[in-house]
Amino acid sequence: MDLFDKLQCRPSPLGEFTSEGYGYYTFPKLEGPLGPTMQFNDKEVIVWSINDYLGVGSNEEVRKYDAKIAQDYSLSSPMGARLMTGNSTEHEKLEEELADFVHKPDALLLNYGYQGIMSVIHALVDRNDILIYDELSHACIVDGKQLAMAEKFVFKHNDIKSFEKQLKRAHRNAKPNSSVLVVTEGAFGMTGDLGILEEMIALKEKYPFRLLVDDAHGVGTMGKDGSGTGTHLGCHDGIDIYFGTFAKAFALIGAFVATEKRVVEFLKANARSQIFAKSVPMPIVKSARKRLELIRKHPEWREQLWKNTNMLRSGLREIGYNVLPAECPVTPVLTKGSTDLCQLIMRKLREEHGVFVSGVTYPVVPKGTVLIRLIPTAAHTEEHIRQTLDGFEAIKDVALRDVGAELQKKMTA
Amino acid sequence: MDLFDKLQCRPSPLGEFTSEGYGYYTFPKLEGPLGPTMQFNDKEVIVWSINDYLGVGSNEEVRKYDAKIAQDYSLSSPMGARLMTGNSTEHEKLEEELADFVHKPDALLLNYGYQGIMSVIHALVDRNDILIYDELSHACIVDGKQLAMAEKFVFKHNDIKSFEKQLKRAHRNAKPNSSVLVVTEGAFGMTGDLGILEEMIALKEKYPFRLLVDDAHGVGTMGKDGSGTGTHLGCHDGIDIYFGTFAKAFALIGAFVATEKRVVEFLKANARSQIFAKSVPMPIVKSARKRLELIRKHPEWREQLWKNTNMLRSGLREIGYNVLPAECPVTPVLTKGSTDLCQLIMRKLREEHGVFVSGVTYPVVPKGTVLIRLIPTAAHTEEHIRQTLDGFEAIKDVALRDVGAELQKKMTA
Repeated sequence: MDLFDKLQCRPSPLGEFTSEGYGYYTFPKLEGPLGPTMQFNDKEVIVWSINDYLGVGSNEEVRKYDAKIAQDYSLSSPMGARLMTGNSTEHEKLEEELADFVHKPDALLLNYGYQGIMSVIHALVDRNDILIYDELSHACIVDGKQLAMAEKFVFKHNDIKSFEKQLKRAHRNAKPNSSVLVVTEGAFGMTGDLGILEEMIALKEKYPFRLLVDDAHGVGTMGKDGSGTGTHLGCHDGIDIYFGTFAKAFALIGAFVATEKRVVEFLKANARSQIFAKSVPMPIVKSARKRLELIRKHPEWREQLWKNTNMLRSGLREIGYNVLPAECPVTPVLTKGSTDLCQLIMRKLREEHGVFVSGVTYPVVPKGTVLIRLIPTAAHTEEHIRQTLDGFEAIKDVALRDVGAELQKKMTA
Repeated sequence: MDLFDKLQCRPSPLGEFTSEGYGYYTFPKLEGPLGPTMQFNDKEVIVWSINDYLGVGSNEEVRKYDAKIAQDYSLSSPMGARLMTGNSTEHEKLEEELADFVHKPDALLLNYGYQGIMSVIHALVDRNDILIYDELSHACIVDGKQLAMAEKFVFKHNDIKSFEKQLKRAHRNAKPNSSVLVVTEGAFGMTGDLGILEEMIALKEKYPFRLLVDDAHGVGTMGKDGSGTGTHLGCHDGIDIYFGTFAKAFALIGAFVATEKRVVEFLKANARSQIFAKSVPMPIVKSARKRLELIRKHPEWREQLWKNTNMLRSGLREIGYNVLPAECPVTPVLTKGSTDLCQLIMRKLREEHGVFVSGVTYPVVPKGTVLIRLIPTAAHTEEHIRQTLDGFEAIKDVALRDVGAELQKKMTA
């Protein structure tokens, strides 16, 4: 059978969103300068769909700095993989600063978060090892797990009993040369709940393992000093490999892992997407250094982020919305319905209230539920929040529906 | 066993290069503005290790343009995955221009070449399909194949008989809903030989399949108009999915696939690293459009590249070096020896002659051989080539060794 003819019969991970609504529900264009308000279909909207948590992406000092470094470095440099011809003192300095920021001995810059973590997982375990991961792990972890040669066990999302069961199973199956790597997230980006890191780490004594935490949503935003979800939960030392991305709070591309020196050395020679693909461009490296400096210098950005998050949440709850008990800034509103309702909410908010949100339905969330995800940032103003709450108030007759105890349990268990 | 304790026992794909020579043989720092000469250990060297084939990376107009666009767009924009909030008119225009450039109906921008092609391969085939690939395919194809659920058959590098054998086998194993995807490269970056695309495509009639060609080294450099190795070989229409990267002739990051519209539509909703990771930053998109415009406007850059390539090759051959019969600009010099000799050649050329080359040994090439790879660009001058040939002349007593018929056959079969 012809491959191309067959493609249209394949189920899509996007469900019903795929075929319709291109340019509106999928692939919308948010244009103009990045910020809490942007242009959508030639209209200004308040944007609640970008992870620019600290407002770094619309920060004037950052904009000016990016323009300045472009005078010194074009986007071309460096050429080649880090190992071959893509290294520089700037890359190394950024690594030192990142390690210092997240309180780990050493760090390795990754040219892109998605392929970076895939290759890290792929490199760390071999066919004798056992990989245990949370069932709601991000796509990049799932792909990394898929690549890895290890035996794989999955545990129910944030379920310590299920995790312990898999750990026990791993230790029962272990050969003398088996090692156990556990992968989970610091903050889950869809539902905003945190990984149960403390409880997991407590099991290390009984069943030794190494823990890799993807803290994409936590780096810069969580913990008193922004060093992430482990710091926030008081168990940072129990994280053996800390993964942070520049794609959220840094408003850039690229990522890093921070861990022991010997592990960084190993990854430098073994993470395939890093040794066989181009290094992070110099302007991005320079800008990441500047952004890190500013994030460390401005803890009040994090305070503002939390202030905005709390104002948005309490406002939504006052209207009667079901805001899931998220512990990171991601603010998920749960209601009952299908794709039709999800699209209606998105359309009404955009067209009638100038509020841009994204929503997801099955298969991302349980059948019969709609999740509207709002991402507050430090750059949003009180006025943005008020206008948004007015919009949610105005649509509550269609948007506010009780999902019932059973579906609620599925989402928050 | 502790995972971290175990890592140092793992064999490394880099062989003996890993542990020694950090900063010199591995992770060297080529600093200063990108170009045919750069700073290495505070000394100016002529660089033959970067794939800036057309000199775009050191082009003054490109540098100025990059600086100008940085005034309009910081590196932050857009945020989010293309599907969610990372789309823009600029992204779409670049796709149109790329499709036009490589003579295909449509194109899809990829946020990074390595993860992009991995996800494309992963998405295209399911567990009923059969994936056939060249044994010397780049690491990103190997990882993509690893991710894919299809049955996998490998053929000997550029061996049409071996390829036909695997095709036959695929069609013998085929279920009614099986499709066959073949993956190879346009130009192989290590040895510089081209994929045997014409002969492969000729077999489509007998054993139908779809062909994906990774033309990382061919896009911009091969074919009269730079549209790649298929055009150069006169069989471009037989390539069903054309993959090009910005990492070489465009001197950027990012990549694209060009194919039928329905396949692009499918990939937009199914290539996981694209729907679950950040879009290409706006300055890179804008710069890629500018670079593409210049590449199309300056066919003389390609002529200069080939002039330089031919001058370098004939000069090396006159001295007596064994230059493999490469058909793309990559110029591989083969000699006999181990890692010691490889390092000696690199060191002598760098220290005594100001010439920076990279070399590889086993396991990248057969045991007992050393491959010194030179990458000429349009930006190199006659003087650069002469100085380099003088260097190779001066070290010929140590560097020029007959590998013998057997090893030679292994490299060129």
